[in-house]
Amino acid sequence: MDAYRATAATTPTRSPERARYDRATVHAVLDEALVCHLGVVGPDGRPVVLPTIHARVGERLYLHGSTGSRPLRAAPLDVCVTATLVDGLVLARSAFHHSMNYRSVVVHGRAVPVQDPAERAVALDAIVDHVVAGRAADCRPASRRELAATAVLRVDLDAVSAKVRSGGAHDEPEDLAGPWWAGVVPVRTVLGAPEPDALLPEGAGLPAYLDPVAQRPVRPRRGAA
Amino acid sequence: MDAYRATAATTPTRSPERARYDRATVHAVLDEALVCHLGVVGPDGRPVVLPTIHARVGERLYLHGSTGSRPLRAAPLDVCVTATLVDGLVLARSAFHHSMNYRSVVVHGRAVPVQDPAERAVALDAIVDHVVAGRAADCRPASRRELAATAVLRVDLDAVSAKVRSGGAHDEPEDLAGPWWAGVVPVRTVLGAPEPDALLPEGAGLPAYLDPVAQRPVRPRRGAA
Repeated sequence: MDAYRATAATTPTRSPERARYDRATVHAVLDEALVCHLGVVGPDGRPVVLPTIHARVGERLYLHGSTGSRPLRAAPLDVCVTATLVDGLVLARSAFHHSMNYRSVVVHGRAVPVQDPAERAVALDAIVDHVVAGRAADCRPASRRELAATAVLRVDLDAVSAKVRSGGAHDEPEDLAGPWWAGVVPVRTVLGAPEPDALLPEGAGLPAYLDPVAQRPVRPRRGAA
Repeated sequence: MDAYRATAATTPTRSPERARYDRATVHAVLDEALVCHLGVVGPDGRPVVLPTIHARVGERLYLHGSTGSRPLRAAPLDVCVTATLVDGLVLARSAFHHSMNYRSVVVHGRAVPVQDPAERAVALDAIVDHVVAGRAADCRPASRRELAATAVLRVDLDAVSAKVRSGGAHDEPEDLAGPWWAGVVPVRTVLGAPEPDALLPEGAGLPAYLDPVAQRPVRPRRGAA
């Protein structure tokens, strides 16, 4: 099936016309967002939201962290993982209709620790490749000790929805003749030229997978594959 | 006092050396982040994380939304508001030491509805000005009906901490002689040239507060004032 099933948890109470359930949209947002925000209910019953790196492998979302970190120690646990890309500032003629263009994905689910060594390896490679595609194959693999210190969590993509706003300002008809400017200021996430480590040997060349970064300032949107 | 008090809730279990409690750092992150992520505990006891626009006025953080939205209807309620700025991709020689440079702020607190009309007006102006400084004074103010449809929440900045990672890769000494590139790829949020609304009258000039946006591609960091 090409779309996630809408549920009570994934149907927004506001602006339902912005909701998207197709996998292509959801995957693209998860793949493009550099970080996500992981929400859990803390031991005192209060919400906790922390930024973290994620990676998607098919219909599985992986998170990782130190085995000492609070949320990772508490797994399996209910989580909400949200990834947001801001695409523009929408300046309407009225204060009320100001908005942002954005694409966001909200994943509800149960985060379970991944114990299988093969799946852990796939997940950790995916997390490195999420940051820079191609990098996992070109760095020193994790040692046994490093692996033992790393917790990997999996959330199956099931109760998932995206929300997308695009386009211009939606003003009241009676405001159109007003004296106020209206329009959109585009927002992008841009990668700068790579800054080599001071301890690299002289003449160390930039790896091929970083060349597109240097030449193309915008982080490429990756497909839904 | 120039710093927030560290509490159990605001002391990170991981990388405590990255924690910051000074108001200047916290304010700068909250002011620069276009959106935050609002975490609440849903009626079913599960976490919910939604992106939203915020604004800081002194030691108060304001959120707003439709009076029909789920979290806003549930207020007063415990929230965690997290704002994150990604500054760079840190490519270490080892997979394990890959990281990101970032500045994040986590606010724990009780979100209370703001009923006082004067405080609501200050908060809503601040939210419009958070997106584009100077805009609140140059748009059609909210009508009585629009105000009635808008809920404003306040979270006092008290249980607050920032976390900051900057600088290069931290590699193991034995990896320094390896064949892998290492360094940092800078990440920035960039504003493009404003795109005027199609229905603007011919010859409508760009307002002065948008000129710096057009001339300076990076969203300016605002001070802690």
